[in-house]
Amino acid sequence: MNAPATLRILGALLIFLGGALLTPIPFSLYFADGAAGAFLLSSGISLTVGLLLFKGCRGGMEFSVREGFAIVTFGWLFYALFGALPFILSGAIPAPLDAVFETMSGFTTTGSTILRVIEGLPESILFWRALTHWLGGMGIIVLSLAILPMLGVGGMQLFKAEVPGPTADRLKPRIQDTAKLLWGVYLLLTAVETLLLMLGGMTFYEALCHAFATLATGGFSTRNASVAAYDSAYIDGVITLFMFLAGINFSLHYHALRGRPREFFRNEEFRLYLAITLGAVAALVYFNQGTVYTSVTENFRYSAFQVTSILTTTGFGTADFELWALPAQFLLVLLMFVGGCAGSTGGGMKVARILLLFKHVRNQLFKLIHPKAVRLVKLGETPVDRDVMQSILGFFALYMGIFVAASLLMTATGMDLVSATTSVIATLSNIGPGLGSVGPVDNFAHVPDFGKGVLTCCMLLGRLELFTVLVLLFPSFWKK
Amino acid sequence: MNAPATLRILGALLIFLGGALLTPIPFSLYFADGAAGAFLLSSGISLTVGLLLFKGCRGGMEFSVREGFAIVTFGWLFYALFGALPFILSGAIPAPLDAVFETMSGFTTTGSTILRVIEGLPESILFWRALTHWLGGMGIIVLSLAILPMLGVGGMQLFKAEVPGPTADRLKPRIQDTAKLLWGVYLLLTAVETLLLMLGGMTFYEALCHAFATLATGGFSTRNASVAAYDSAYIDGVITLFMFLAGINFSLHYHALRGRPREFFRNEEFRLYLAITLGAVAALVYFNQGTVYTSVTENFRYSAFQVTSILTTTGFGTADFELWALPAQFLLVLLMFVGGCAGSTGGGMKVARILLLFKHVRNQLFKLIHPKAVRLVKLGETPVDRDVMQSILGFFALYMGIFVAASLLMTATGMDLVSATTSVIATLSNIGPGLGSVGPVDNFAHVPDFGKGVLTCCMLLGRLELFTVLVLLFPSFWKK
Repeated sequence: MNAPATLRILGALLIFLGGALLTPIPFSLYFADGAAGAFLLSSGISLTVGLLLFKGCRGGMEFSVREGFAIVTFGWLFYALFGALPFILSGAIPAPLDAVFETMSGFTTTGSTILRVIEGLPESILFWRALTHWLGGMGIIVLSLAILPMLGVGGMQLFKAEVPGPTADRLKPRIQDTAKLLWGVYLLLTAVETLLLMLGGMTFYEALCHAFATLATGGFSTRNASVAAYDSAYIDGVITLFMFLAGINFSLHYHALRGRPREFFRNEEFRLYLAITLGAVAALVYFNQGTVYTSVTENFRYSAFQVTSILTTTGFGTADFELWALPAQFLLVLLMFVGGCAGSTGGGMKVARILLLFKHVRNQLFKLIHPKAVRLVKLGETPVDRDVMQSILGFFALYMGIFVAASLLMTATGMDLVSATTSVIATLSNIGPGLGSVGPVDNFAHVPDFGKGVLTCCMLLGRLELFTVLVLLFPSFWKK
Repeated sequence: MNAPATLRILGALLIFLGGALLTPIPFSLYFADGAAGAFLLSSGISLTVGLLLFKGCRGGMEFSVREGFAIVTFGWLFYALFGALPFILSGAIPAPLDAVFETMSGFTTTGSTILRVIEGLPESILFWRALTHWLGGMGIIVLSLAILPMLGVGGMQLFKAEVPGPTADRLKPRIQDTAKLLWGVYLLLTAVETLLLMLGGMTFYEALCHAFATLATGGFSTRNASVAAYDSAYIDGVITLFMFLAGINFSLHYHALRGRPREFFRNEEFRLYLAITLGAVAALVYFNQGTVYTSVTENFRYSAFQVTSILTTTGFGTADFELWALPAQFLLVLLMFVGGCAGSTGGGMKVARILLLFKHVRNQLFKLIHPKAVRLVKLGETPVDRDVMQSILGFFALYMGIFVAASLLMTATGMDLVSATTSVIATLSNIGPGLGSVGPVDNFAHVPDFGKGVLTCCMLLGRLELFTVLVLLFPSFWKK
């Protein structure tokens, strides 16, 4: 472990955070919400600690995968801790654990909130909430398409961004290059959505916050009633579309913008993602017609919004789906496990992994009938290496294991089975709302502190694809 | 597919069933319960169809794995259909679907019942219910230790019975030999438990029925209140012990009886099985102390019974665990997925598979830190072949896939989320009771017909380790 180099990078990340903490100040001054001082102080603390680490830790910058794991995990952890400062210092969320929960929920693009009432808070605080989503989403794009494939986590090697990069084999410029291209796409989509939302009647401030939360598949809103507060079919439509886009591998967007839109349909994961979305919308429309909605257009509007919101792990709400039919609710819970495409900002297990699990099982059955046949699992036209398949299967088992272990801990806090299990999957898959006492019209304020701690861990574990965090628990990780 | 040979074997199995259908008649005559005629007629039908198939289907007796799959799946299916005849003909269970549900529940050693009231029924009918468990258990022992390993299903190759057999390489005598030795153990344990239960005050009839249901990890009782009806710490203790024994790989019992009891502790799966049992009992005692029970001995008695009953997938009840603390309930649900040891009569995913999943995940984490290290997963001292591991991982993914798909179908029948999901796992893991409307003091009578059909499929799928049934759905299975 090259501790000085790791700490130096973490210092640089904190310096960046210190800069980001200044951006809500113009909003604070414009709205005269009185929170500017809290941001200034928070920024100062982040910058000071960041500079101390950056300047204080000198030495060789040789990296191995271990430093990669440590930087990613502690990076997100530091952001959740230092990013919580303005919530605490402004008095918006006085309890430190609550503030860290909220910030972790932001940077992991989860969207679960401990706030009972949102609308009374300073505008700059709500902007910061949305910005944590957006920055987290930026982190996830580069993480899932450049860093995790390199670290070999959970089969992510398969989903490397195929964007043109410099031929030089050195790592840093390649990651930087990939990141810049994809962030360009991310920025562009954010700008377009902001504009479209403003055309629907939102102010620039509201539009920007919602665009941040959409593109990051986060789900924090500036309104108590989430997107339902606008009660506009146009706004629902725009957000549905952009949630759907945010759940797609960003390298496909890059290809599309470069004039190769057919790449979408050549991508097997995208095809399944589209099929799941359409199939689930059709099923929900079927279950809801006549029971919850009488008008087909209204039914389609709310069902499509909810499917996209849950599948992409955004978590925005326009309807209380706890009032829907039970199979509709259960279907939404299943979508919570699936999540978006690999290389998107969406959480969950990812569509590609589900696809490969399915193919693996089919292959196993085929082998029983044809014991001598050799048939490899393929993704698109690429045969999937057995090691990668083992890693994906391991990821699935671990996901289930963490899901049940955390659910058991949540029941121990006194939560009923449905609330306990769905609070875990809502955070582990970085969605936001669950069912029961953490349903779409509820929040996480009532969860006991121990439970909030468990769920905070779930957000981090899920967002960083489990392995990235868990390797740090191996004693041999820390050995020379 | 060698259809004539397959049908010939199925005919032989029906002839055997026809014989077994005669055994309740002495009980019927002794108790003068009026059901003897129904058994005679059922036996006649089974024997006739069996003889027609056996005599009518001649030809070469060459077998491949395909015939193996077909015989196992259709064998269980035929038994559920023809074994249901006495229930229908006696009028005990007039609806054919209900009777098939009950019989499938019997032969798959599940123990879920559609009977609202048990005690008024003819004694011979209740004896037949218990006997379907016991015969199913006999089938499972030879299936899991001899047939499935040969067919290569879901990693079962690992759990082959290591009992001395003839050196000749021909299949039939080896299976017969293994079967005879293990059935000897099964018979002996059944006899001992019957005797011990009689010492506790049960009649021979009651003791035999409960011993059948215990050794098969079935769970059908002759009493409405299940084992709770006897309200005897001694009987609870005896049944707890024998449920625990029935959940162990029967080849270990064989070794123990041959004077090698240390084989138990040399077996890694057994050690984990013991640890899970003790750990879960301790956890339940902890959760229940002061909340449900005030006396520690009483608490221990009921907690130990319930853990063993659920983990071994027996499903006997001495307490309404829906009144227990929520984490205690959730822990029991988790145990439902685990099940007994491979090569026992218990259902579920099996302790060994859970152990290997855990080791696989640990290995994946280890590989991330030490990318160049080569470390194989081992079971005991045996390295687990990568193909076997792939098969086990595929089994796990398929188990979860079937669990969620069947749960979705159950919610569509109008069941709530907890009842829907636990009714599926209770049948898929061959346990018996679930939670909610299918809880320990409820039954499956109220489940709509469609749901009963789904759960009947779950029992068969789970009992035959999924793959055995599902390969039949591949078109290429049926091709020449």
